[in-house]
Amino acid sequence: MLPSSRSEMIKYAIRDVTVPASKLEKEGIELIKLNIGDPNKFDFKTPGHIIDALCESARNDDMGYTPSEGFEDLKQAILDYERGKNGIDATTDDIIVTNGVSEGISMLFGSLLEAGDNILVPDPSYSSYDSYAKFFGAQTHKYATIEDEDWICDTDNIRKLIDEKTKCLVLVNPNNPTGSMIPKSAVKEMVDICGEHDIFLISDEIYDRLTFDHEFYSPLSYAKDVPILLLNGFSKLYLVPGWRIGYMGLQDPESKLGKVQEAVKKMARIRICPNAPCQKACIAALTGPQGHIKDLVGRLHERRDFAYKRINEIDGLETRKPQGAFYIFPKITHPAWKDDKRFVLDVLQNAHVLFVHGSGFSSTAGKMHFRSVFLPPIETMEAAFSKVEAYLKSVKA
Amino acid sequence: MLPSSRSEMIKYAIRDVTVPASKLEKEGIELIKLNIGDPNKFDFKTPGHIIDALCESARNDDMGYTPSEGFEDLKQAILDYERGKNGIDATTDDIIVTNGVSEGISMLFGSLLEAGDNILVPDPSYSSYDSYAKFFGAQTHKYATIEDEDWICDTDNIRKLIDEKTKCLVLVNPNNPTGSMIPKSAVKEMVDICGEHDIFLISDEIYDRLTFDHEFYSPLSYAKDVPILLLNGFSKLYLVPGWRIGYMGLQDPESKLGKVQEAVKKMARIRICPNAPCQKACIAALTGPQGHIKDLVGRLHERRDFAYKRINEIDGLETRKPQGAFYIFPKITHPAWKDDKRFVLDVLQNAHVLFVHGSGFSSTAGKMHFRSVFLPPIETMEAAFSKVEAYLKSVKA
Repeated sequence: MLPSSRSEMIKYAIRDVTVPASKLEKEGIELIKLNIGDPNKFDFKTPGHIIDALCESARNDDMGYTPSEGFEDLKQAILDYERGKNGIDATTDDIIVTNGVSEGISMLFGSLLEAGDNILVPDPSYSSYDSYAKFFGAQTHKYATIEDEDWICDTDNIRKLIDEKTKCLVLVNPNNPTGSMIPKSAVKEMVDICGEHDIFLISDEIYDRLTFDHEFYSPLSYAKDVPILLLNGFSKLYLVPGWRIGYMGLQDPESKLGKVQEAVKKMARIRICPNAPCQKACIAALTGPQGHIKDLVGRLHERRDFAYKRINEIDGLETRKPQGAFYIFPKITHPAWKDDKRFVLDVLQNAHVLFVHGSGFSSTAGKMHFRSVFLPPIETMEAAFSKVEAYLKSVKA
Repeated sequence: MLPSSRSEMIKYAIRDVTVPASKLEKEGIELIKLNIGDPNKFDFKTPGHIIDALCESARNDDMGYTPSEGFEDLKQAILDYERGKNGIDATTDDIIVTNGVSEGISMLFGSLLEAGDNILVPDPSYSSYDSYAKFFGAQTHKYATIEDEDWICDTDNIRKLIDEKTKCLVLVNPNNPTGSMIPKSAVKEMVDICGEHDIFLISDEIYDRLTFDHEFYSPLSYAKDVPILLLNGFSKLYLVPGWRIGYMGLQDPESKLGKVQEAVKKMARIRICPNAPCQKACIAALTGPQGHIKDLVGRLHERRDFAYKRINEIDGLETRKPQGAFYIFPKITHPAWKDDKRFVLDVLQNAHVLFVHGSGFSSTAGKMHFRSVFLPPIETMEAAFSKVEAYLKSVKA
C-alpha cells in the first residue's frame, strides 16, 4: 500500500537533521540546538497573566467546541489589535482563528489552488509555502532575494515570474530563514505588482514586531483595492508556540476573494474549531499588559548583535545582519565543504551544535548556507560558536 | 478569484441549519438546540483533576512546541490504555496525536488517496469521511446499513462495492448519526473482507465506551495481518471536545502501511504539533481517576431510554433504539413532509427546536430522517419533544 504522490511533495528539512541529532543524544552526547524557532526552549517564558488566563478559562468556561472561525471576542480583539498597527479595513467576519499559521496556509491553499497554478514565494523561505502549494498540485515560483543587500526582495524578478497561472504573491516580512526586512518602497511596489496582474498578496507577519533596525511596514497600510491576506499568530510574540493559535485576516474591500474566503470557512468548519481555553487566553494576551514585548525584543536585539559579530569572526563563515525575527543565515565559505547539508551534519557530529542546512529552505539561494537561531543567552551562543570555530579550524581544505 | 474545485467537495450539513438558527436567536427567540454533539454544552463537565492537570502544565511546563507526533509520555499512555481495551499490537511509534479525529482523517486521506481511488463508508455517516475523501479527489462508496435491524452494516453490500480502486473500509462503531453498534460477528467479517481484498480497515472508535446494551468489540482484538488504523480521542469520554486532542494508532504487524504511515508523519511535522498543555492534561485524563465515565454513561443511558420512548410517542415520527454514542436518528413519517431539510427548518421555525436533517449524513439512507442528540437533561428533552409534538399535530397532511 503506497502513499499518495501528493504526499511526496511535503518537505520539512528540519527533520533531516533532527534524526541524526536524536541518535547522538541517545548516545549521551549533549548538543547545543540552534535549529528550532521556539523561544520557550530557551530563557523566554510565557507572561504570567497569559498563563493565569488559561487556567481561569479552564476553570470557568465549558471546554466544549467553539465557533469554527474562533470565538467572536477573540476575533474582535485580533481585529482591534491589527487595526491599531496597520489600519486593516475588515470586520470580524474577515478574521479566522487557525491552529497556527501553518493551518492557515494549508486551508488557504486547499481552498484556492488548482493543479497547474503557481504562487510566488521568496527564495529562500520557510518550507510550508512550497510544501503545501505542491501538495495541492500547484507550483512555486521562487523570486530572488539579494544577499549582498541583506536579502531584500528583487521586485524586478517578481515581475518576470508572474504568468497567467499565478494566483498570489507571498511576502514573509521579516523573513524566515534570513531575518531580512522588506523596505517600505518594496512593500508598496509588491502591492502595485499584484494590482497590475490582478492577483492577491499573502502577507506573513508572524515576526512583525521582532525587529531591530527598521520599523515594520505592512502592505495592509497601503493597499486599497488589492486583496491582502494577513497571516499572524500568538506563538512568537506572546511566547506560546505550543498553543498553536494563529489567525488569518482578509482586507478585501471589493470582495474579490469572497468565494475563496467562503471556501476557507468551510474548511474551518469541517475541522471543527481551534483550542478553546487557549483561544480565551489569547484574548488576555492581546488586551492585557504588553510589557514583556520590550524585554523580548531587547534581549533578541543583543543576541542578534552578538551572533552577527561572532559568526563573522569565524574563518570559513560570513553572514549578513538579520533585521528581524530570530534567525541568521550565514554563508559557508570554508573551502573544505561543497555541500551545506554535509556541513551541518559534520558540525553536528564533531562540534555537537545543531543548525539547519540552507538547501532545506531553497535549493538555489540556500545552497552553502545554514540557518541558526539567535534565541539562546549569549553564553550559550558563545559556547556553540566557539566549538564550531575550533572544529572549522581543525579541518583542512 | 475563484476557489478550487476541490473545496466544493467539503459539505458540513450542520452549518445549513445553524445559519437560520442564529437568525432566530438574534431576533430574541430561545431555541432548544439538539444539533451539536458537544456534551459540555449541557450538564456534563470536565472532571476537576483533568482541569487541574491543564493548569499545572501551564504553570510548570514550557509552552513551546512538542514533538509533531505528540509527547512520548502521552503516546505511551494512549498505547497502554488501548492495549488494555483491545490488545493493540503496536509501539509508541505507531501512535500519532492529532488535532481531534478530524485532523487524523484529513492527514490520512491526504497521505493515501489518489484521484480515482475510493473508500467504503457506512451510509449514513458523519460527513468528514465523505468530504475529505472527495476533497482529495477520491470517491466514497457508501455501504448499506439496515434500519429495521437497528442500522447494522450490510456486509454483503460491502463485498459488492469493493473494486480494484478501493483503498480502505471505514467502520464507525458506534456510528454517528444512528448510534448503531456492529455485532462482533460483523466486525470479524469486515476484517476478513479487508484481508480477502488486501485493503485496510479504519476503525473509528470515538464513541467506543459510550454504549448501553452491548459490549463494544474492536477489530484490533481480532485482526492478525490486516492493517487496522484506529481513530479515537479525548473529546467525548473525557469531556474536552474544545481541546481538539485525538489520536491515530496503527496495528500493522506486517508493515503493509509503513510508507503511508511515514507520509502521515510528514504531514504531522509540517503542521508542527498538537496543543502542548492539553496534551499533558490528557496524560492525566488517561492515568487519573476514571469515576466520571460510569456517571456519564449512566446519565446517557437514561436519556437514551427517554428519547427513544418519547420520540416514538409522537405521531409522525418513529425511531430505532440507538445502542451507543449520543445520537438518535428518527424517521419522519408525518404525511405533510416530503423533504427532511424542509422538516428540520419548519420545526426550527415553528417549534424552536434545532435538529440536523438526515440528508446531511446521506442523500439516500438519510432521506426523511433527522439527527437529534440525547445529551440534555430529561426535562429539556421533554420540553423539546413536546413542542415538536404539538407542532406536528397542528400541521395538516
